[in-house]
Amino acid sequence: MLPITKAARLRALIATRRGVASISCRTARSLHTRSSLNSAEAAATAQPATHEVDYAPSLLSEIAARRAKAGKLVAGIAAASDSDMFKGPQTGKPKAKRWDNHLSAESKSREPCSLKQAAKHLKQPGLISLGGGLPSSELFPLDEIDMKVAMPPDFSEKGTAAHGQRVTIGKYDVRDRDGTYDLSIALNYGQSTGSAQMIRFLTEHTEIVCKPPYADWRICQTIGSTGALEQALRMFLDKDRGDSVLTEDFSFSTALETITPLGVKAFGIPVDDQGLIPEAMDELLTNWDAKARGSRKPHLLYTVPSGQNPTGATQGLERRQAIYRVAQKHDIFILEDEPYYFLQMQPYTGRGQPDAPAPNNVEEFVSSLIPTYVSMDIDGRVMRMDSLSKVLVPGSRLGWIVASEQIVERYQRHAEVASQGPSGFSQVIVHKLLDETWGHEGYLRWLMNLRLEYTKKRDALLAACEDNLPRDLVSWTPPAAGMFLWFTIDHTKHPSAGTRSLEEIEQEIFDSCIKSGVLVARGSWFATEKDAPLPGLYFRATFAAASPENMNTAIARFGQAVKDSFGRK
Amino acid sequence: MLPITKAARLRALIATRRGVASISCRTARSLHTRSSLNSAEAAATAQPATHEVDYAPSLLSEIAARRAKAGKLVAGIAAASDSDMFKGPQTGKPKAKRWDNHLSAESKSREPCSLKQAAKHLKQPGLISLGGGLPSSELFPLDEIDMKVAMPPDFSEKGTAAHGQRVTIGKYDVRDRDGTYDLSIALNYGQSTGSAQMIRFLTEHTEIVCKPPYADWRICQTIGSTGALEQALRMFLDKDRGDSVLTEDFSFSTALETITPLGVKAFGIPVDDQGLIPEAMDELLTNWDAKARGSRKPHLLYTVPSGQNPTGATQGLERRQAIYRVAQKHDIFILEDEPYYFLQMQPYTGRGQPDAPAPNNVEEFVSSLIPTYVSMDIDGRVMRMDSLSKVLVPGSRLGWIVASEQIVERYQRHAEVASQGPSGFSQVIVHKLLDETWGHEGYLRWLMNLRLEYTKKRDALLAACEDNLPRDLVSWTPPAAGMFLWFTIDHTKHPSAGTRSLEEIEQEIFDSCIKSGVLVARGSWFATEKDAPLPGLYFRATFAAASPENMNTAIARFGQAVKDSFGRK
Repeated sequence: MLPITKAARLRALIATRRGVASISCRTARSLHTRSSLNSAEAAATAQPATHEVDYAPSLLSEIAARRAKAGKLVAGIAAASDSDMFKGPQTGKPKAKRWDNHLSAESKSREPCSLKQAAKHLKQPGLISLGGGLPSSELFPLDEIDMKVAMPPDFSEKGTAAHGQRVTIGKYDVRDRDGTYDLSIALNYGQSTGSAQMIRFLTEHTEIVCKPPYADWRICQTIGSTGALEQALRMFLDKDRGDSVLTEDFSFSTALETITPLGVKAFGIPVDDQGLIPEAMDELLTNWDAKARGSRKPHLLYTVPSGQNPTGATQGLERRQAIYRVAQKHDIFILEDEPYYFLQMQPYTGRGQPDAPAPNNVEEFVSSLIPTYVSMDIDGRVMRMDSLSKVLVPGSRLGWIVASEQIVERYQRHAEVASQGPSGFSQVIVHKLLDETWGHEGYLRWLMNLRLEYTKKRDALLAACEDNLPRDLVSWTPPAAGMFLWFTIDHTKHPSAGTRSLEEIEQEIFDSCIKSGVLVARGSWFATEKDAPLPGLYFRATFAAASPENMNTAIARFGQAVKDSFGRK
Repeated sequence: MLPITKAARLRALIATRRGVASISCRTARSLHTRSSLNSAEAAATAQPATHEVDYAPSLLSEIAARRAKAGKLVAGIAAASDSDMFKGPQTGKPKAKRWDNHLSAESKSREPCSLKQAAKHLKQPGLISLGGGLPSSELFPLDEIDMKVAMPPDFSEKGTAAHGQRVTIGKYDVRDRDGTYDLSIALNYGQSTGSAQMIRFLTEHTEIVCKPPYADWRICQTIGSTGALEQALRMFLDKDRGDSVLTEDFSFSTALETITPLGVKAFGIPVDDQGLIPEAMDELLTNWDAKARGSRKPHLLYTVPSGQNPTGATQGLERRQAIYRVAQKHDIFILEDEPYYFLQMQPYTGRGQPDAPAPNNVEEFVSSLIPTYVSMDIDGRVMRMDSLSKVLVPGSRLGWIVASEQIVERYQRHAEVASQGPSGFSQVIVHKLLDETWGHEGYLRWLMNLRLEYTKKRDALLAACEDNLPRDLVSWTPPAAGMFLWFTIDHTKHPSAGTRSLEEIEQEIFDSCIKSGVLVARGSWFATEKDAPLPGLYFRATFAAASPENMNTAIARFGQAVKDSFGRK
């Protein structure tokens, strides 16, 4: 069963073909077009926004026209910026709700950085600053960075090595070459939001992909979603209040390891092939017993909607809407962690069957994606975490969040005294590639290409499973997104069922796998509630890195380890 | 008065000339040479280590020999590493004390990341990993990064633009070109310590500069000292225990803004021209009144020993030793924040006087530096924070800590669920420059060059002050390090002294400065105890960024603003 229903795909395609142009040009910094609806009015709206993807083929050209009209982006060293400078008009949209009661004491106590506040004076003409301790770019030992990058239509590694495009980042491109970003700016101190140059690109990208239905959304760059999640958890969770967080009953182990030291508990919600079950979430919250749980009723949900880690499950559109409604009902704030969003693959058609037709162009591609939580977030109750780790390079340590102005402002206050924003090397290299070389369309084509590459990898792993695994013992659902395949092993058929614990059997299979030369991840590593008994026997495999041949060998070894443990030949 | 006494300099130079070779070759990973002294024995030692800088001219060649003997560094994607792989023998050194009672509940509760633990199996020959979700480098859209960098002896910007050296970082230099680091490794996921390649360089650099007197010291890369400080504070401070932190009575405002949201207090120790006064610190701690203070007796000191921000004060050698002894007496752990350590300048000889002779070579340069706290840290009670922000480029967001194995391990556990280490772009570019192009000697020459550049900048600001400031109202001490000059204004001479608050007068002067076109930082921004009355009227100016002409204009404006406020012409 695949999470993307045919109907949803079709509806999306039709919406695309309608070609609704919903973003018009305006100059940067014209903030007066913001909606006058207040948050009370927004709160009165009971349903998540309609989900029809009204991505318009003309949006890309509209963004180009908006840039042209706004004129050259002037943003020097440590220039402050926010999404409002670059967004299209938000006319008619409500403002986000406020989350004062959800925020932790730590987050609420943050004051703006006094030195960064003083930076506002720098705009004054003729002012000489003896204020901030910024080194002079004169003393930077780099004059230029060149790179060779992949270009459409041939994004392949071989093609790039042979005829990739050379692009150059100079030290003073802004001063000397009419550039918008250069080493003298990127390599100096910046704002905790990251550079204005990247904020512009990512704001536009968010319009293309998420199109938030409330007015006062913003983005802020991060040092990747692991760091962003830690900041977000500290923003919302307060152990002194008995806070806790909801998540899938098997969840990303690093996320769980981030939560525990904060002195709060994580509670698991049952999942199915489409991930989180909204009815289960509703029931859990409706019947919350604070005393038995040792935590007050949760006000925060952490979820990975697409290609969830570890289960590989992808929430379909209706599923997301249902979960959003449950969140509204119980006043839950949602942390939407979407590293694999653009690793939504082609529908799995089965072995030897013709491939599903690939998207013909970037419009079809964007329309084919399941809408994000942000795109239905009429309350501003979602903080989305995006990252370049899975779609470009993990080493960039560069991601971004999308959330309401209030939430982004609190996030930013924390980042000012923590990361101070992502690496300038990362920002300027990524900007040169994504904004100046590829542009929005080129980046979307890169993502389309990635979709097909991951489809091939997944299909190779699925073929290896079909060839090598005992189907009566091991079952799996072909993942619609991400890089993980989740194996459910029928432990009731194990000769020691009932006499040995699931942990012991899991350990035995894992050890046997290592011995025979395959590393898979144990299900128990991802169990949200570590003190509860394991509900089943699971293993996680990734198709991200190994070659098809190696996958086949590896899965054969895994299959044998399972059979050995179950006393099969 | 200058913090570096002539005697200390001489002693250091003599020590250098003794040329004691104290680090001999050994192969990497031979850990058996570690001292067998236990921490009880270490604790029995009552005095900080002798401070004589026994930097040996042969250390650089010894490091080179050690590398040659160890053979090629083999460290692939996400390879684990630690300083023990790269350190010289630590024979005869005690082990660090343990700090279990100093650590916070949050820090103590951190468990190793289960997925990273599993990575230990990757060493097994023939093992195929379907474990971690690492993308394949095949799908990285960059083939190569080239750059043009400054080279000795002409490090100037102009020289670099004209004839800087071109260096190339390929995607598969390790596989194809006998390299040690490349894009396929740097741009994938890494360890929270950062790459083994950078750990090697920074471990050796720490031997050259700090030479810790205990055996089990380690380094870990950071995303810069702001982030490192936040992690360190969370490691040691626990509001539930009534913890607090000591620091200079005027301290780095961002550090103070990091401390407050943690729910703990910062207490200020009086300073003089050499910063922290050890007797005042001892008295404060000896007579600590937990009830009156609202916090139990502190166990943590945060200090910036060289070119302190904002006062510009530099602790001399004897001062550091005295503070260390007070820390021993009261069992205080020291956070040594040293962004400006290598911005120790030439002694200020006075206007029109001949310059002090510059160091003749890198040995003299290193010997001229005031010893670090780590270099006298026989107990392992110091965590030093280093950063490339002030000495290379702030945009690298790359720094490192030096501390005992226990402390670094706790730090690393946190980084695994937060930053995940610095940007791979930053690491590979910095490695290419510092390790592969300049080498240790080249980097030290770069730092020597920086010393002279900052000396010129400081002297220009001091000249501007001598020319433009009313000496009976404004006084200052020529800074020996850093980028800041601290003005003390004699508020007793103000016509409104006693009738208006110092804050009001400070505000008046600040506003007047802005109006006339100069930004200086207000002293009150840096006051450690915000609820205590301001002890005086102070302003901070930086000489980092402005040209000499601009500094002169700016200081003239500042002087006029002071005179206007004091009713002078």
